[in-house]
Amino acid sequence: MRDDVIVLAHGGGGTLGRALLEEVILPELANDALAELGDAAVIESPGGRLAFTTDSFVVKPLFFRGGDIGRLAVSGTVNDLAVTGARPMWLSLGLVIEEGFAVADLRRIVGSAAAAARESGVEVVCGDTKVVGRGEADGIFINTSGVGVVREGVVLSPSAARPGDAVIVSGGLGEHGIAVMSEREGISFETPVISDVAPLWGLVDAVLSTGADIHVMRDPTRGGAAASLNEIAGASGVTIALNEESLPVSAEVSAACDMLGLDVLSVANEGKVLVICPEAEADRVLSACRRHPLGDRACLIGSVGESRGVDLILETAFGGERVVEMPYGESLPRIC
Amino acid sequence: MRDDVIVLAHGGGGTLGRALLEEVILPELANDALAELGDAAVIESPGGRLAFTTDSFVVKPLFFRGGDIGRLAVSGTVNDLAVTGARPMWLSLGLVIEEGFAVADLRRIVGSAAAAARESGVEVVCGDTKVVGRGEADGIFINTSGVGVVREGVVLSPSAARPGDAVIVSGGLGEHGIAVMSEREGISFETPVISDVAPLWGLVDAVLSTGADIHVMRDPTRGGAAASLNEIAGASGVTIALNEESLPVSAEVSAACDMLGLDVLSVANEGKVLVICPEAEADRVLSACRRHPLGDRACLIGSVGESRGVDLILETAFGGERVVEMPYGESLPRIC
Repeated sequence: MRDDVIVLAHGGGGTLGRALLEEVILPELANDALAELGDAAVIESPGGRLAFTTDSFVVKPLFFRGGDIGRLAVSGTVNDLAVTGARPMWLSLGLVIEEGFAVADLRRIVGSAAAAARESGVEVVCGDTKVVGRGEADGIFINTSGVGVVREGVVLSPSAARPGDAVIVSGGLGEHGIAVMSEREGISFETPVISDVAPLWGLVDAVLSTGADIHVMRDPTRGGAAASLNEIAGASGVTIALNEESLPVSAEVSAACDMLGLDVLSVANEGKVLVICPEAEADRVLSACRRHPLGDRACLIGSVGESRGVDLILETAFGGERVVEMPYGESLPRIC
Repeated sequence: MRDDVIVLAHGGGGTLGRALLEEVILPELANDALAELGDAAVIESPGGRLAFTTDSFVVKPLFFRGGDIGRLAVSGTVNDLAVTGARPMWLSLGLVIEEGFAVADLRRIVGSAAAAARESGVEVVCGDTKVVGRGEADGIFINTSGVGVVREGVVLSPSAARPGDAVIVSGGLGEHGIAVMSEREGISFETPVISDVAPLWGLVDAVLSTGADIHVMRDPTRGGAAASLNEIAGASGVTIALNEESLPVSAEVSAACDMLGLDVLSVANEGKVLVICPEAEADRVLSACRRHPLGDRACLIGSVGESRGVDLILETAFGGERVVEMPYGESLPRIC
């Protein structure tokens, strides 16, 4: 490691987090399921393929337009299972709470987690609560882990993108990150940006039910679409090209990104899915998305080509190209 | 809730934590698997019974005699699966790290978690790392969740203790709690107390392999044997009587408890299992324990009787009796 202490960027879902994982964590824990680095691990159990995933949530503020840490914690884990092709079934809920935290806020957060669980058809079957002293945590941190059953016949992998594939996103980019950042920084817009945080199994199930030959799915959370697509391209040995003009970005998100100096491609989403499939299947996938309320703004945003020595390229509105780097990780701390 | 803010005792594994669970968390999340409140949830999956559990670790200090937060996090989750009668298979590792944390310490902790995983025959198949700012956490918090496969024919439940059952513990009480407290408080003894933190699947498997009709197993962590046995007695509608003279407590632990004003029965263990089985099976269970290196000090410590209107009684060395209450939860913060 370049640094001898942990910095915020180690948690930002970008280059530095990846280095931490590869240099400190993976060497100790090496095994096939972990090495895949998917959103969830797929494990062979006596009864078939299960998906297993974990996520800790440290979002600040805890309540924001469109959701709160409870809804986020359930949606995030449901979505990691979903994009592995697994029906989310069972969730755990681990709470680390700071002494002095309001019980009323805890009730609201747990209620919101429960509502998101009902929305996704999952049950929270186990949990744990720890309390630390004042100043030893910041309000509440939540870990949710989840187990799902992988749909028969479905094999998705971040390394399965192939030249000739289409890249689809289920709706507007950057809405979660901007909603949280504007709340935190006290920035207000004429039309406020609302987080897209939502459990996506219904949408993903609809896409899988088309029978289309899906290669990769991913929910572009921390590090945004830039991190997800860089990872997929790297793992698949291809170059992904996005078309700037077709990126679905609302005027409000776009204005906020300008104001905050952010590239919308690196801003977190919590209710969107990226789908990569052969171009010939794209129309089927797009129609399935658009028939679902969480996918009605789905669109084709790019394509996969042979490797050109870089992972991700943006074809700009002016006919130019720019390389979209893996975000370093420091620009949006505590976004999820 | 009596209080409108969270206090340390809400996390202490005692009465107040139970109230938080029953009044704030369970009403929102009610389902059969969760309602059982076992160490792990047993879920019916397509291929058989799985156990699923989660635990967050906030122990302070992070390194203590006999272990560290990494070994603790893996052992704790392995043990929760084991006492449900499940072979631990897959673990997740969720890290919340404070900015400025030393990478060398992180390496040591992950290495220690990996060693404990190898010792237990489990794989860490998924993980997550979040970083929060300085002063927003205390070093590192770890969540481990785990999935195991329940042994065929084994049905253990905290509500299955029956009059006529024997109560066995696999070794000396209070060693983890005292090791951590003496480290934290800077108390030194002539012979230092070493935490018993260890993964117990090997020992539990040996006990189950005797074929004895085991009713309940539990690892008495937060709140110690007092909390575990109060919960079991309450859930089973029985009274459990412990014999003070037969409790395995080392001279060092006993002296430390006196000095710190603690009842050893409420001090955390991280490498011990309580086994409740018909008295006729007790010898078989004891021999199986004693043949295992982690159970060589196993002994019979009490018996289960018809309910006498209280959950847990200690028959003292002087022929008296005292009721052992459920600990309130405040005496040993951040012990695991």
